[in-house]
Amino acid sequence: MEQNIIYVPIALAVLGLVFMFIKMAWVKKQAAGNERMQSISKSIKEGALAFLAAEYRLLLIFVVIASALLFGISYVVDTTSWMIVPAFIIGAFFSALAGNIGMRIATDANARTAEAAKTSLPQALKVSFGGGTVMGLGVAGLAVLGLSLIFLFLMGSFLTEGGNFYNEMTVVLETLAGFSLGAESIALFARVGGGIYTKAADVGADLVGKVEAGIPEDDPRNPATIADNVGDNVGDVAGMGADLFGSYVATVLAAMVLGNYLVQDMSQGAQFTDAFNNMGPILLPIVIAGVGILASIIGTFLVSIKNNEAKEPQVQRALDLGNWVAIILTLIASYFLIDWMLPEMMSMQFFGEGYKDIPSLNVFWSACIGLAVGALISVVTAHYTSLGKGPVLDIVKNSSTGAATNIIAGLAVGMKSTFLSVLLFAAAIYGSYELAGFYGVALAASAMMATTAMQLAIDAFGPIADNAGGVAEMSELDDHVRERTDILDSVGNTTAAVGKGFAIASAALTALALFAAYVTFTGIDGINIFKADVLAALFVGGMIPVIFSALAMQSVGKAAMQMVQEVRRQFREIPGILEGTGKPEYGKCVAISTQAALREMILPGLITIITPILMGLIFGAEPLGGYMAGVCVSGVMWAIFQNNAGGAWDNAKKSFEAGVEINGKMTYKGSDAHKAAVTGDTVGDPFKDTSGPSMNILIKLTCLVGLVIAPILGGHSEEITASNENDVQVEMSVVVTGDDDAVATITETRILEGGITSSIKKEIEGTEAEVMAELARIQKEKQ
Amino acid sequence: MEQNIIYVPIALAVLGLVFMFIKMAWVKKQAAGNERMQSISKSIKEGALAFLAAEYRLLLIFVVIASALLFGISYVVDTTSWMIVPAFIIGAFFSALAGNIGMRIATDANARTAEAAKTSLPQALKVSFGGGTVMGLGVAGLAVLGLSLIFLFLMGSFLTEGGNFYNEMTVVLETLAGFSLGAESIALFARVGGGIYTKAADVGADLVGKVEAGIPEDDPRNPATIADNVGDNVGDVAGMGADLFGSYVATVLAAMVLGNYLVQDMSQGAQFTDAFNNMGPILLPIVIAGVGILASIIGTFLVSIKNNEAKEPQVQRALDLGNWVAIILTLIASYFLIDWMLPEMMSMQFFGEGYKDIPSLNVFWSACIGLAVGALISVVTAHYTSLGKGPVLDIVKNSSTGAATNIIAGLAVGMKSTFLSVLLFAAAIYGSYELAGFYGVALAASAMMATTAMQLAIDAFGPIADNAGGVAEMSELDDHVRERTDILDSVGNTTAAVGKGFAIASAALTALALFAAYVTFTGIDGINIFKADVLAALFVGGMIPVIFSALAMQSVGKAAMQMVQEVRRQFREIPGILEGTGKPEYGKCVAISTQAALREMILPGLITIITPILMGLIFGAEPLGGYMAGVCVSGVMWAIFQNNAGGAWDNAKKSFEAGVEINGKMTYKGSDAHKAAVTGDTVGDPFKDTSGPSMNILIKLTCLVGLVIAPILGGHSEEITASNENDVQVEMSVVVTGDDDAVATITETRILEGGITSSIKKEIEGTEAEVMAELARIQKEKQ
Repeated sequence: MEQNIIYVPIALAVLGLVFMFIKMAWVKKQAAGNERMQSISKSIKEGALAFLAAEYRLLLIFVVIASALLFGISYVVDTTSWMIVPAFIIGAFFSALAGNIGMRIATDANARTAEAAKTSLPQALKVSFGGGTVMGLGVAGLAVLGLSLIFLFLMGSFLTEGGNFYNEMTVVLETLAGFSLGAESIALFARVGGGIYTKAADVGADLVGKVEAGIPEDDPRNPATIADNVGDNVGDVAGMGADLFGSYVATVLAAMVLGNYLVQDMSQGAQFTDAFNNMGPILLPIVIAGVGILASIIGTFLVSIKNNEAKEPQVQRALDLGNWVAIILTLIASYFLIDWMLPEMMSMQFFGEGYKDIPSLNVFWSACIGLAVGALISVVTAHYTSLGKGPVLDIVKNSSTGAATNIIAGLAVGMKSTFLSVLLFAAAIYGSYELAGFYGVALAASAMMATTAMQLAIDAFGPIADNAGGVAEMSELDDHVRERTDILDSVGNTTAAVGKGFAIASAALTALALFAAYVTFTGIDGINIFKADVLAALFVGGMIPVIFSALAMQSVGKAAMQMVQEVRRQFREIPGILEGTGKPEYGKCVAISTQAALREMILPGLITIITPILMGLIFGAEPLGGYMAGVCVSGVMWAIFQNNAGGAWDNAKKSFEAGVEINGKMTYKGSDAHKAAVTGDTVGDPFKDTSGPSMNILIKLTCLVGLVIAPILGGHSEEITASNENDVQVEMSVVVTGDDDAVATITETRILEGGITSSIKKEIEGTEAEVMAELARIQKEKQ
Repeated sequence: MEQNIIYVPIALAVLGLVFMFIKMAWVKKQAAGNERMQSISKSIKEGALAFLAAEYRLLLIFVVIASALLFGISYVVDTTSWMIVPAFIIGAFFSALAGNIGMRIATDANARTAEAAKTSLPQALKVSFGGGTVMGLGVAGLAVLGLSLIFLFLMGSFLTEGGNFYNEMTVVLETLAGFSLGAESIALFARVGGGIYTKAADVGADLVGKVEAGIPEDDPRNPATIADNVGDNVGDVAGMGADLFGSYVATVLAAMVLGNYLVQDMSQGAQFTDAFNNMGPILLPIVIAGVGILASIIGTFLVSIKNNEAKEPQVQRALDLGNWVAIILTLIASYFLIDWMLPEMMSMQFFGEGYKDIPSLNVFWSACIGLAVGALISVVTAHYTSLGKGPVLDIVKNSSTGAATNIIAGLAVGMKSTFLSVLLFAAAIYGSYELAGFYGVALAASAMMATTAMQLAIDAFGPIADNAGGVAEMSELDDHVRERTDILDSVGNTTAAVGKGFAIASAALTALALFAAYVTFTGIDGINIFKADVLAALFVGGMIPVIFSALAMQSVGKAAMQMVQEVRRQFREIPGILEGTGKPEYGKCVAISTQAALREMILPGLITIITPILMGLIFGAEPLGGYMAGVCVSGVMWAIFQNNAGGAWDNAKKSFEAGVEINGKMTYKGSDAHKAAVTGDTVGDPFKDTSGPSMNILIKLTCLVGLVIAPILGGHSEEITASNENDVQVEMSVVVTGDDDAVATITETRILEGGITSSIKKEIEGTEAEVMAELARIQKEKQ
């Protein structure tokens, strides 16, 4: 059993995919409503698929170029295998596939949810959440399956009997990083493109439709309404699916890489052995991910309501129940898995502090810290973005003095929300590291991501319900249908905001784990910001998320203006359009969004990928590390700021729908204060749906690119010899720093009388040949 | 001569102050206009002085508490002298005095400028720029005088014949840091308090006056108009004066501290000697500062125009001429000073790279890099914020689709402007460090700050002209008076934006120099972000500027809302107020701004000062370093983002005054697009005048606090012995890391055959006694 544990996640992934197909068939079997509903649903689906097809065509070019570059790298650098190229391509393909599956089921589920809502709210929840479940399991199943199979294949190719396990496993994981890189690259473009698409359509539709013409949301007279609904799917569903697929894979990969270092740490003196082919710490993350799929499936069964008169709290409770059961089941399983798969006491190297003995239970506590902090960050996020809470009410109050004070208040809320989020996040880094080093940090992230299937099911049901409402409105169904889908939609908004808090926390922890992997990979001696080049790179890195957000915002603004002009033109030129007798040209608006999204996603995408490569090649490994840290620090701030400001503005606007008290007076929709709040919401839209969520991918992808090019930046650090006798530890390692230069480090640590630790570190610099000759001399001398 | 060079900056500072008094007398001698003008000018002056008096009362409490804490530190820590307390108090006093002098002359000059503008634009420029000159020379003169005198006094107290020069000078400079800390603390409160005051009044006055009641800027019917004009003085004049005083002192101090390390570096083997009592590198920065005062005085003579019909370009050209002459004179003088005061070839230690021989000319090139990058950043700032340039036109265009797209466009412009600014800034760090290490970085900052007197004269003339326009409007003078003051005001807006670019660049470089001083001070081995606690601290540091900005924004929003309600109440309750027959209650609005500013400046101020202390005491020296770096990186981004977004929004609004073409149609004031632009400008106001400019002080003060508490965090690193024979360098140093623990480091560097460098580093950890005993044993062995 122990030897073949890698087959467990494979089996669980297949189980997840089987369950996905069953659920998919069930959703498709549901009644799809009358002809008009089906036709609208079909328009949305066609628009979305047409966009994805165009996007994939463009990304194909990117994948071809990137593959050629990767092949070049693997050709030049000895330690990199050409197999990174197929791994990259499979990763890109799986990521696109995951988004595609989700989008297809979402566009199938929308009309069916509306149809179900005619008779029953519980059934409407079942259909929309069923669609979400398909997507969640598709993403998680494909991720675990892809990772496990490629890992299995690579182990077969690279691990040799009696070879240097650590070095060979490094090559395996480095190649596996190609899979993650492929997934994350596609995720970036899908997220940015989808985000621009959806917000261009949304902002454009709102500005002319709601504000100028005074017609409601999703009104069929608005030419941009189909584009708006398509946008929900390509942005919130396909974009998010690819995003979480990428996160999930990157998290597991980072934990595996750090597991490999743990194996190496424990091989001090003698080769580490365990019942899992000596690689328990490497396999643990992927096994936990597999178990998370099973727990998520169990959780989905608990998401249901009985009462047709239920309101938001009941629906929220049902989702919470399923979510927490999945989380707790995973946590319990993790306890036993950690106990089983890790040695009871592990020897771990802590940077600058030497080796420490760490009980395996500490890894479990790290995972708990990850979950606790993730949950607390979600609570903080909910506080800053929820209806009826202080921050949103503050924005509402500031709307009474106009758009300017509304904007100032919203910006301030977004900024303030960084305070507790960042403190919690810093505590997570500090705590999980203290407990179990960077392996602990990686496991904390893994624990957060383990129930991705469930999280995504909850996240994806929101846009489905939102679309169902759109279908109901456009098909002019009874008001009670829209009311029911609105209940689901409103819960979906909350879960989306909370999900974003979780996502940025896990993404940031993953990025740090990748960052740690990068440092160990390049063999550099830490990342010291007291060096001017590293410090300069830290600043440049800090600028990237800002400029990325600027480009995304600007793209949305540009595309929205085009959309506004097109909608105004149609209102002006198509006779009878506002009376409902003339037919709007939906296709033209869809085309504007599509073209804008494709055109505008290229520059931010390329900046993200090319800048770290330039940094590394021109300035070297340590400045690139500084750059990564800068991207992470700044990216986390801007993500939290933008997501929460956007969420708070959205709900400040929504507050007026039910009416809200300002300075003792009830104020409603249509008031000046409400108009100011609509302005705030419009500014917040690209914040929370375009630039904000892209930050996650930006920071992970930056670290992944660094990891993949690490071998070019001076090569692996190679341990030459290690001995441990008479309380003297001798370690020798060589780092090849350039074409022909090398630095050898020899560290002798000994315990003197009275418990004094004395460590002598000798560094030899010179050409590779000189250094190797000198080392050989020293080795001879020692013997 | 060489021995007494410290008297040169003292003489030049006194010369500056004498010239200041002459100029002040000249300004006061000018005609102050009719009774109404004098009465308005008096109201503004009284309001401003009342605010400053209230502010100083509050700050007195702060100074007393901080002095007690500093005394406590100096009592506990051996290496810190109690003299840091008087140094701190004098710094605080001088900073307040500098702001006060500036504000008095500014409020005297406003009516006189308006009076001069009745007959002559050249004379109006002469009076307003004369006021600016008084302020500039006051700040620079006091700074150089204070620094030199205290330095002279401290040297007399601490330097002993035959003592360890480096250690004694460290104590001198550490005590001198108290002066800088006092100056910077007051600057922080003055900047934040003044910023909140001015924007609360401005936003409040605009929202009700311009937008709701439709009366022009500075209309005497608006009850908030006096508060608005008071705000210009307490924010833009007193706040900025204290800010630049603090910057100037911190920059010179940082360069002196790094000069001391340079002296130590050059004392390898034998004591370094030169003609300047062996401290040329320490004295150089203060001598350059003194020469900068002289160059500024010469520059001010060149600022004049002849033609009464001159427009903005001619005025701008006159200011540019004076500015560039001052800069170039300083640069030429610096070349000769560097050549004279530094040894031709210097041995400098580069972190991780050992000693390098650096020609003194490299220091001059570093200064040139500083000036070039400062000038280029100003060009970038001007591009993003100037009338008629692409970014501002883009915001104008986006105003046509409403406030939301205007805001999105403005935010995007602010974010985008970080790109080139940060790249330039990173290049400045990299370049000046490569040339001459952190001493080069400090000298780059010093070069930027050397002509502070001139810069400030240019910066301060803007608010004076702005106020002159207010006086003209309120006194109902002829339109041509306002037209002339508007020309000066408009140039003042451009110089203010450009000055901000310069200010953030120099502040950031200064912060880095302080950061470098901190690292060397604490004796830690760099700041390695691969350690989890340092990384966590980096994130926490990155959050501080965001939360600081949030608090500032929120304070402005809150106070502005109070102001809006008060103005609305007066419009409602005072009969005939809008017809000009009822007299508005100006005093109530002044009181609202005053109270809000005093109440709201406390929290952000305390966060800035207390957080680094807690960080250092709880987590230690290296995490505090990570925290500082986080504050700097994030602070620079948010400063550039906020300053430039605010500046661009302001000018987008102004574009409508002359009329601007949108989609082929000319659009003017009063259009919907203009209203959208006013909203953007209102959001931008606290960005560019409250939170944005506070970032400079935030980052410098953070690093200064770190520097002052450095001795508590593990004590000074003490060099025990250094020898240099037979190509073997031996260095020993001990760092006391806690109550009783110590780490000794012994480094032996030798050149092997074939040019291979071998360095052996031995670390001994244990209790202080054990380590010292072991060291003694080794020393004996070596002899």
